[in-house]
Amino acid sequence: MVSVMDTTAIAHGLEGIVVAATRLSDVDGERGRLIIGGYPVEELAPRAGFEEACFLLWHGRLPDEAERAAGRAALAAARVVPAATLALVRDAAARGAGAMDALRMGVASLLVDEPSAGRAAQERAAIALVGAMPTLVAAYWRARQGLALPVERPELGHAAAFLWLLAGRAPAPAAVRALETYCNTVIDHGMNASTFTARVITSTGSDMASAVVGAIGALKGPLHGGAPGPALDLVFAVRAAAAANGRALAAAAEDAVRAVLARGERLMGFGHRVYRVRDPRADVLGAAAPALFAGAGDARLFDDARVVEEATLRVLRAHKPGRRIETNVEFYTALILHGVGLPSALFTPTFALARAGGWTAHVLEQMGDNRLIRPSAAYVGPRDGHWPRRSALRADAGGTPAATA
Amino acid sequence: MVSVMDTTAIAHGLEGIVVAATRLSDVDGERGRLIIGGYPVEELAPRAGFEEACFLLWHGRLPDEAERAAGRAALAAARVVPAATLALVRDAAARGAGAMDALRMGVASLLVDEPSAGRAAQERAAIALVGAMPTLVAAYWRARQGLALPVERPELGHAAAFLWLLAGRAPAPAAVRALETYCNTVIDHGMNASTFTARVITSTGSDMASAVVGAIGALKGPLHGGAPGPALDLVFAVRAAAAANGRALAAAAEDAVRAVLARGERLMGFGHRVYRVRDPRADVLGAAAPALFAGAGDARLFDDARVVEEATLRVLRAHKPGRRIETNVEFYTALILHGVGLPSALFTPTFALARAGGWTAHVLEQMGDNRLIRPSAAYVGPRDGHWPRRSALRADAGGTPAATA
Repeated sequence: MVSVMDTTAIAHGLEGIVVAATRLSDVDGERGRLIIGGYPVEELAPRAGFEEACFLLWHGRLPDEAERAAGRAALAAARVVPAATLALVRDAAARGAGAMDALRMGVASLLVDEPSAGRAAQERAAIALVGAMPTLVAAYWRARQGLALPVERPELGHAAAFLWLLAGRAPAPAAVRALETYCNTVIDHGMNASTFTARVITSTGSDMASAVVGAIGALKGPLHGGAPGPALDLVFAVRAAAAANGRALAAAAEDAVRAVLARGERLMGFGHRVYRVRDPRADVLGAAAPALFAGAGDARLFDDARVVEEATLRVLRAHKPGRRIETNVEFYTALILHGVGLPSALFTPTFALARAGGWTAHVLEQMGDNRLIRPSAAYVGPRDGHWPRRSALRADAGGTPAATA
Repeated sequence: MVSVMDTTAIAHGLEGIVVAATRLSDVDGERGRLIIGGYPVEELAPRAGFEEACFLLWHGRLPDEAERAAGRAALAAARVVPAATLALVRDAAARGAGAMDALRMGVASLLVDEPSAGRAAQERAAIALVGAMPTLVAAYWRARQGLALPVERPELGHAAAFLWLLAGRAPAPAAVRALETYCNTVIDHGMNASTFTARVITSTGSDMASAVVGAIGALKGPLHGGAPGPALDLVFAVRAAAAANGRALAAAAEDAVRAVLARGERLMGFGHRVYRVRDPRADVLGAAAPALFAGAGDARLFDDARVVEEATLRVLRAHKPGRRIETNVEFYTALILHGVGLPSALFTPTFALARAGGWTAHVLEQMGDNRLIRPSAAYVGPRDGHWPRRSALRADAGGTPAATA
């Protein structure tokens, strides 16, 4: 007997199902608006320090001067991670692990207080986890190049410290500001898959490290956090094609996009499951780009990216006239992070480092008003199997004969 | 402006919401029935080897003789884990980490193929993850006692190898059979929180190690996998009280349970969110217990536990006359695992080691018919914040002045 059930009633992606009330962020995909901790993203992202954005999400208000200084110092202290964790991340690099695998390993190896230790301990756990991430990513990346970490500089803010640890030289102020703007822009985004993972794990009463490790695993998936690299690859490929064939950039871009569509492939950097209009994060990052590229080595990249973006949108809209297709956050993420000097292999780990502010805030929110998250499944297999007698005897069980049958 | 919304429409625990069709298990809480891979749990659990149960869930059918031998050999080979992983788990023990933290660390440090490598690679990943777990738990536990692992014995089955690695002596056949019966009984149980976590992570296109690490984090939570230890503590406490006061065990049990209820505490081992009638897993484990305890050191424990169970149910039913309250799987889990010789600190890791068979099967099922799992949240915070001008200047930003405002 096999169950015959109405599988149309299955909410495979849980789309539109509301699982929590939150004060952390609001994604209005119809109107293209994003609120983070009470502030429109375009208000908060270019102005806040990343530590301030974290404090806002953790506490529901802005820090005063003393709290701001204490928060910076606590995050800086958390950049010093256990020796076993550093050894693990370096070993991961030696074994050829990807950056997100290394980040998963490093964060999984951290120990934080259990939620039963109370709210103050939970907040310390958030700082410990967010604070450790720049060190973990930098240790992995430098190990891949046979380099040790530079000496930690506790006076630096979170974003500046990440760039310092990666490069071993003082980052340009414009790069720090652009990276902070990026981190603030993506710090939280409603009930996305990684944030939801963190909340499901938290709902069992587990600890914050376990929740953040699960979230890192979810963010690793290309359907969630894995696409910013390829978005910029298109720009570089179009540049090369234009140069090789002596064509205008826009024409070369249109050709390239048509070729991608003809092969039936997805075009990275365009379209989003939630936003029906332009992703507001793309605007915030687009607005931040000129100041970053004004003094950078590849100053023309921003202009070229704009040309490729516009050509791509022209082709996409002609290809699917009824659909509203817009540039998404990944396109400008790639542009900003490349301009900041990050290799594309670190784009998703940098996303994780930023989103960790949101993950930990969601964990705190879930801990504060918890209920076990346990949905259902529809069984569609047989029901009345009889175990074969032969197996019951388990004559082949190599020294472990069945004691009961 | 604060959103005022109908928060009664929030599906906080996702109860009753069907997120997937599955061929792996069916939990019928109303009738107290559990189907695993097409077999009623009472048919499968006492007869199958754990490797056979895993094969059944991974492949949807029983193995033939050659597949059974190959499966045992592959799991045995996976018990040999990288040196860095072993070092990490031992370091965790030295740092005072709990067993589930150590298991999270160890599994997180494993590298498996990405899902894009195809079904055969995904199945190898399942074997690698399930196979490694006995070694990780045993390495942690023995390190806590200053001991190295015994030499791996590849001819042993999964359950026997776990007991061998923990104790360094050949396990009794009755203990191996009881442990296999336990592992089969809990190998899968519908869309529980850890299994759901694994499916959410998988839904992003992430790898199986990331999914299983997330699941371990969820299982660690006391609302999910963390209660079997305390269930048996009640039996030992009642025994001690009966001996100290010269009372009958049943009377001492009734007193103890009334005292727990008077303190408003939860009684571990009784009641379940899903089952309205007796948990069928409790019956399967209860039926397996006599053969285990027949030759064990504490032969009276089974009888004493039955007396305490019956006294507890009497008191609970008198306390809440309208409610159906039954013994749940945790009570007999504690009894069986204690009888097998496991310390209560390893009860939840042993649960994880068994449930990993189900987790990996759900990951394979999700990979085979995937859709990103992304629910929604209801925003209940303010929307129109203006960032203060002072922060925009970030005069205190320690060497990283804002380049844009």
